[in-house]
Amino acid sequence: MNPMDIGFMQQAIQEAQLASASGEVPVGAVIVAAGRIIARSHNQTELLKDPTAHAEMLAITSAANYLGSKYLNECTLYVTVEPCPMCAGAIGWAQLGSLVYGASDDKRGYSIFAPSALHPKTVVRSGVMAEEAGHLMQAFFGKRRR
Amino acid sequence: MNPMDIGFMQQAIQEAQLASASGEVPVGAVIVAAGRIIARSHNQTELLKDPTAHAEMLAITSAANYLGSKYLNECTLYVTVEPCPMCAGAIGWAQLGSLVYGASDDKRGYSIFAPSALHPKTVVRSGVMAEEAGHLMQAFFGKRRR
Repeated sequence: MNPMDIGFMQQAIQEAQLASASGEVPVGAVIVAAGRIIARSHNQTELLKDPTAHAEMLAITSAANYLGSKYLNECTLYVTVEPCPMCAGAIGWAQLGSLVYGASDDKRGYSIFAPSALHPKTVVRSGVMAEEAGHLMQAFFGKRRR
Repeated sequence: MNPMDIGFMQQAIQEAQLASASGEVPVGAVIVAAGRIIARSHNQTELLKDPTAHAEMLAITSAANYLGSKYLNECTLYVTVEPCPMCAGAIGWAQLGSLVYGASDDKRGYSIFAPSALHPKTVVRSGVMAEEAGHLMQAFFGKRRR
């Protein structure tokens, strides 16, 4: 386990907690370049009434804007839950250097539904703080069902 | 062939021509609800320096904003070229009623790389004005290679 990963994933989890507090599915993301966070975001599909407003999408748009480039080869995206095919496709177009995610998503995760959506050069690490990230999701959906 | 499809696809092709004139990969889209265009857009990844700014993504965000709903079950999305996995994922989340596209995309198309990204209820029609849509793409990439 990369010790840097823990610190950045904790920041992504803080974003997921913000989502949860606003009634959004709790997914958070940060993008890191040269050891610094250059973009952070959480899912805002309800607030924006926009099905594309996933944490990863907002973070990618924000980081690309910050760098003035649509390619993010030198960046690492941290996200609390495995990206869906939409987000994996965006990660593919942006050619992210690395993708680090927490909890797996057997129902919507790209690794099942769009395994080749990422750019072949993107390095993937998974399972980082998966328990915390997954617990946020379970608590959210548990509450919604009640 | 649905005769309505031709008229709306012509509008999407007009959008693709706008993209081409701005040096963007020429893909255009319109979204129709109750027989009216409620959103129109073209690829703007270069202008916005945003890898997520595909024609379909911008149109979905715009239509959802117009309707105040993140679901577009009653809408039809017309797009000149087969959506990529990112856009297909967004079409899936938005639960589009119908997707109509022109030219197929063997290199990036969702039907090869993310065949289950769409919502199962979305009706798909393909090949509508495929020749015109494909010709725009070939002319664009031919010019870029020269």
